Amino acid sequence: MRIPALLTLASLLVVATPAAAQPKPEAVLTTKGYQAAVNVLDRDHDRLVAEIIKLTEIPAPPFKEAARAKAYAEMLREAGLADVEIDEEGNAMGVYRGTGPAGGPMVMIAAHLDTVFPEGTPIKVRREGTRLSAPGIGDDTRGLAVLLSYARAMKESGIKVRQDIVFVGNVGEEGPGDLRGVRYLLTKGKYKDRVKSFFSMDGTDASRIVVGGVGSKRYRITYKGPGGHSYGAFGLVNPMVAMSQTVVDFYKIPVPTKPKATYSASVTGGGTSVNSIPNEVFMEFDMRSENREELAKVEKAFLAIVQKSVEGENAARSTKEGAVSADVKLIGDRPAGETASTQQIVRNAEAIVRAKGLTPKPSFSSTDSNMPMSLGIPAVTIGSGGVGDRSHSLDEWIDVEKSKSLEGASIGLGILLATAGMQ
Amino acid sequence: MRIPALLTLASLLVVATPAAAQPKPEAVLTTKGYQAAVNVLDRDHDRLVAEIIKLTEIPAPPFKEAARAKAYAEMLREAGLADVEIDEEGNAMGVYRGTGPAGGPMVMIAAHLDTVFPEGTPIKVRREGTRLSAPGIGDDTRGLAVLLSYARAMKESGIKVRQDIVFVGNVGEEGPGDLRGVRYLLTKGKYKDRVKSFFSMDGTDASRIVVGGVGSKRYRITYKGPGGHSYGAFGLVNPMVAMSQTVVDFYKIPVPTKPKATYSASVTGGGTSVNSIPNEVFMEFDMRSENREELAKVEKAFLAIVQKSVEGENAARSTKEGAVSADVKLIGDRPAGETASTQQIVRNAEAIVRAKGLTPKPSFSSTDSNMPMSLGIPAVTIGSGGVGDRSHSLDEWIDVEKSKSLEGASIGLGILLATAGMQ
Repeated sequence: MRIPALLTLASLLVVATPAAAQPKPEAVLTTKGYQAAVNVLDRDHDRLVAEIIKLTEIPAPPFKEAARAKAYAEMLREAGLADVEIDEEGNAMGVYRGTGPAGGPMVMIAAHLDTVFPEGTPIKVRREGTRLSAPGIGDDTRGLAVLLSYARAMKESGIKVRQDIVFVGNVGEEGPGDLRGVRYLLTKGKYKDRVKSFFSMDGTDASRIVVGGVGSKRYRITYKGPGGHSYGAFGLVNPMVAMSQTVVDFYKIPVPTKPKATYSASVTGGGTSVNSIPNEVFMEFDMRSENREELAKVEKAFLAIVQKSVEGENAARSTKEGAVSADVKLIGDRPAGETASTQQIVRNAEAIVRAKGLTPKPSFSSTDSNMPMSLGIPAVTIGSGGVGDRSHSLDEWIDVEKSKSLEGASIGLGILLATAGMQ
Repeated sequence: MRIPALLTLASLLVVATPAAAQPKPEAVLTTKGYQAAVNVLDRDHDRLVAEIIKLTEIPAPPFKEAARAKAYAEMLREAGLADVEIDEEGNAMGVYRGTGPAGGPMVMIAAHLDTVFPEGTPIKVRREGTRLSAPGIGDDTRGLAVLLSYARAMKESGIKVRQDIVFVGNVGEEGPGDLRGVRYLLTKGKYKDRVKSFFSMDGTDASRIVVGGVGSKRYRITYKGPGGHSYGAFGLVNPMVAMSQTVVDFYKIPVPTKPKATYSASVTGGGTSVNSIPNEVFMEFDMRSENREELAKVEKAFLAIVQKSVEGENAARSTKEGAVSADVKLIGDRPAGETASTQQIVRNAEAIVRAKGLTPKPSFSSTDSNMPMSLGIPAVTIGSGGVGDRSHSLDEWIDVEKSKSLEGASIGLGILLATAGMQ
């Protein structure tokens, strides 16, 4: 249906007016509905823990999130959400209906389905008291489970919000995914023009409010050479040496701690056999910064090092059968971005954290919020509650001790409800 | 059947006597039988080429030689050999019966089935005139095909030799195979006590006689660390840096050209994802020398470098979540060995090469002959004829121009017949 321009403008005004007249964000916390919902979270804590474990143990490597997405869609449906579906990119989502006009602005809250761990990584949750360990359990499986608990608690408590809230388990947040899930949702998905506020729930610390997206550049460099017999062709150039020299020099780049800039030599592979000079080897490199200029500096130094390593190897050994070369491929390019502290979504988050007795910690990180930030959609990343550490390592863990867990989850719920316009 | 000790001794004497009274090795070349066999090789040259191509295009990565072994066993049978079988280790073999007493000494001639190329390497022979290119075509598929042509030519020409000759397509010569095929044949196989002369046919140059086995040491080093988030855990130790430092320093070890010593950083892999500091990475290293002391020197320097690289990384970055360590695993240990120039097998080879108008080139290399040499069994490695180059690289090639090919193959046949005692 085509809507006349005037009507569209009118409907926007309808929405804008109550937002301007909105009470203080922390008023949400004293409503009966909110308190009832927190009681449900309290009562259902064991269910939350069980669902964290269930979802963690469904492997979801980059580009292979389908099994977890399917299970998650089923759980969104069980939680009572409407329009549950898996979109073409693989994101699972469902809608909590608001009272506002159909087709109006909506809030999106997303946790990511994917983990950094490659296929075949053993994933079995280990419990020691309230501490649960497993690859991906905190980043970001706890977030997925907390979103389900929100939907159920809101439903059971009969909470009414003005805006539709779309709950999402999205693909492609980690590494090679390069934000493909949220990119699709906000540039091609069915709600792309309706999402006016975006939350990523990622990490645990509920006082941490990610208001800036750390930018990143990722490269896969393939070093090639003529190869040959390790004994018979000894003395020919070896692409492995050029690659190794790159790593050694890369790790000497000076970087500031403020604004923070980092680098990592992360994944490698290649070679023919132990008794051959390799034809081809590769390495993947990651560079990040909360500051665009610092990131550009590291990137520039890196690319010069690659070049110099190749030249050094070609000068050090014989190129009579061919020289070493480097194929430079950009495999990740995440936009940096920021949500201004004057935006309502940031005000809501800070007010709720403060009202709960904590000190808000505005932070920079690379999360799904980079994408809406770069598109000008107000976005923050919030924590799922409790504590945890060692994400991206095999000994990743979270603590699900009830009071800390509930405290954090209640904060996120308050921020969400304040933003969606609780009634 | 148990043979009385006296009888055994007597049978050994019977064999020993004619060997002592043996005519000059090059006398073989003027016999009608040899000349008839060479005419068959000449006539069947196109078949040889077709069989080289056929065998080359059956992939045979290390430990995955079964398909090629099966095809080769079938071809040995077609060539008219007796007792064709594939042994428990995977070696394909068949016997050309000699006229000597049953159970007497025998000659083994072997080419290796395996190539260095991993599963999935595209292998399609490319022809340009008489030049054929494909991974593994010269190392050692041509040798396999030449052995078949010998068996057929000997059979058709009615050649009689005193000793049984066992023709072998063996597994496990390359890299990780660590000579497992010939090791089995000579230490566990059914003919282990009967093989008194051993030929490996490997490489093309027919004037090259490998009388010394280049020793090698091969290591797989696994570098481990705590891993972590590339941004959040930046500053923690990275095992990739320790590994890269090892390669850079390894390639600075000075080695003599005489006696030759070499090294190679060959195969690598590992890492969690582009945005993680890796938990674990590995590299395989190869070291060789024709001289035991030089090899020991390189090995000692290498192991010290591994140690120093690990220490350096632990000093350069934070170990608060754990330090980098290196698991050092010896994955290849090929004995050096030598066949004295006074041994009949060396005399035969040199005399035949010389009689064919070429200059014998005694050489050192790492081939299947390392194994019999280390066991005290007289052994040499001879060429299959023609020319070729770039073994262990994807652009490996051989030339099958007929006159050069036939010249080389005829030399090998003469050496084999002289050693088996042509009658």
